[in-house]
Amino acid sequence: MSRFFSEKYATLDPYVPGEQPRGLEKIVKLNTNENPYPPLPEVCAAAAEAAGKLNLYSETDSRALREALSKRLGVSMDELIMTNGSDEILNFAFMAFCDEHTPAVFADVTYGFYPVFAKIDCVPYEEIPVKDDLSIDIRDYFQRAGTIFIANPNAPTSLALKRSEIEEILKQNPYNVVVVDEAYVDFGSESCIPLIRKYDNLLVTQTFSKSRSMAGARLGYGVGCPELIRDLNAVRNSTNPYNVNSLTSAAGVACLEHDEYNRENCRIIMETRTRFERELREMGFEMPTSQTNFFFARHPEIPGGELYLKLKDKGVLVRHFDQERIRDYNRISIGTPEQMETLTAAIKQILEERA
Amino acid sequence: MSRFFSEKYATLDPYVPGEQPRGLEKIVKLNTNENPYPPLPEVCAAAAEAAGKLNLYSETDSRALREALSKRLGVSMDELIMTNGSDEILNFAFMAFCDEHTPAVFADVTYGFYPVFAKIDCVPYEEIPVKDDLSIDIRDYFQRAGTIFIANPNAPTSLALKRSEIEEILKQNPYNVVVVDEAYVDFGSESCIPLIRKYDNLLVTQTFSKSRSMAGARLGYGVGCPELIRDLNAVRNSTNPYNVNSLTSAAGVACLEHDEYNRENCRIIMETRTRFERELREMGFEMPTSQTNFFFARHPEIPGGELYLKLKDKGVLVRHFDQERIRDYNRISIGTPEQMETLTAAIKQILEERA
Repeated sequence: MSRFFSEKYATLDPYVPGEQPRGLEKIVKLNTNENPYPPLPEVCAAAAEAAGKLNLYSETDSRALREALSKRLGVSMDELIMTNGSDEILNFAFMAFCDEHTPAVFADVTYGFYPVFAKIDCVPYEEIPVKDDLSIDIRDYFQRAGTIFIANPNAPTSLALKRSEIEEILKQNPYNVVVVDEAYVDFGSESCIPLIRKYDNLLVTQTFSKSRSMAGARLGYGVGCPELIRDLNAVRNSTNPYNVNSLTSAAGVACLEHDEYNRENCRIIMETRTRFERELREMGFEMPTSQTNFFFARHPEIPGGELYLKLKDKGVLVRHFDQERIRDYNRISIGTPEQMETLTAAIKQILEERA
Repeated sequence: MSRFFSEKYATLDPYVPGEQPRGLEKIVKLNTNENPYPPLPEVCAAAAEAAGKLNLYSETDSRALREALSKRLGVSMDELIMTNGSDEILNFAFMAFCDEHTPAVFADVTYGFYPVFAKIDCVPYEEIPVKDDLSIDIRDYFQRAGTIFIANPNAPTSLALKRSEIEEILKQNPYNVVVVDEAYVDFGSESCIPLIRKYDNLLVTQTFSKSRSMAGARLGYGVGCPELIRDLNAVRNSTNPYNVNSLTSAAGVACLEHDEYNRENCRIIMETRTRFERELREMGFEMPTSQTNFFFARHPEIPGGELYLKLKDKGVLVRHFDQERIRDYNRISIGTPEQMETLTAAIKQILEERA
């Protein structure tokens, strides 16, 4: 830190993203929950066309994207805000709906960015322990005096609550905002978007990064009642009014025009999940039944950190969190069947070498 | 505002970007200081290629861009941080180097986003009046107890300080950071980048939006000593680690590979500036001698707001700030010679209609 860095950030502990090694061709990369299937050529063509007009500013209200997406989601345009990845909408929610009187409330095992947002935005936070089986007890979230953030499905646990369970939490928190972070919702769990007209305290966030193969484009969004969206736009226009660039916007619109491709990819990933969950269990792994595009798995015979390192040696990258309660686990993204075969072959070898 | 919006933002007054009308083909758009010359086909090709890999996350450290840019600027990679437009690096500087004990300090007539950043980041600020001729008296910036933000050249005044004058300000503020916002530096004024190794309190910010024809891509950067850059990266990694998306990154690298095209465009814009400054003065306009890609001009016979509206009626969009001290002026971006001819013809007509 320089001598000029503000004291308010003395305890800042920045987010650490998964490794992004260069020379990817030699690596099976299963560490950041990327979609293994690339975007369609139509997305590339749209980006190229948009690039020819880059001298002009992008839209400040992402109108084209909101038009396309509102139809798909069945919400109106003023119930929708587009952001620079879903990280940005989450950060805006921390800024808009938390302060020294209103702490952020979230699970102790969840998306690692929540405490980082709390610190950078100088708001207090409370962590609620998940149960020993890594699941969430919704009663722990009743009548909290704070803004609740629930990743649903949760990462890295891969477990989802039902919509009716989230609805209970919403009912029990009429005076605070409940943010439901649905980054992984398209892999088989229930979205809370149908509840936004019933609960003015609900903000749902989603992303194009996982199910729509656009992690590199940084495109996310929030869905909620128009009043919440107005607040979030006030924050957006006070930090980054041109938050979605023209290239990402054009790619996103083209991506939505061929959304059946994305849905088909999700279906394939879920099929791959079923097959390799069985394989991993047969190899002795223990894990929650994933409702996401990743497994969160531990093996009784090999510590999580050791497995991570040995897999890395063999050119397979998974994510290990050296963190209390989940140190035994690794988070393994679900890639193509071929990538998963390489993974399981590498694991078999590692287990044999130890035996 | 919803009932959930934090009280800390009760006085929030979001930035208002220039209008971005649809149906551009019928409008001469001279209101947001865009470069009239589009990017090269090589930039489009690079964006298309990057789009094919959008399923993977972008680099978290913008290594490819920093490699290309550090060579061009003659700085090392750890003296450079890439951001989502220069708005983002400016906001990071407000966050990192201002707080309740360290106010932000800037001119009363300058980039309208500075007070907005101060409010969203909950830091106090002081505005220093520019002189009646809109110029800055550097002595007003000596020994300030705060973080100084100077747009140089200044917007919307179009006036620049010399590097030696900024150096005086740096010397007179050894205990605070001085941020020099050089969004418009490539149109004929002196950059302070050569000073970064001499002053550890200097942060220079620049952008690809104006001189490099990439406003729509959102690409900016900060240059300073490695300690300052580390602080700014701590903030970046606590809000938006993937802040520069893959499409923008690829377009930016391709743009730098053909930087002579950008320099030639700047030269043409400066030529156009010389010619039309003369024309506007002949028509009775008063204005500072611009060192940017825009004019800041008033006419003794027609109020600024009226001229703005009448030009809009004729399909020419300029920027009017309905704001004390500068209400008489309009900010007019320098477009192609053809666009400027349409502008001056429209003005002639308006003046004749009033006569």
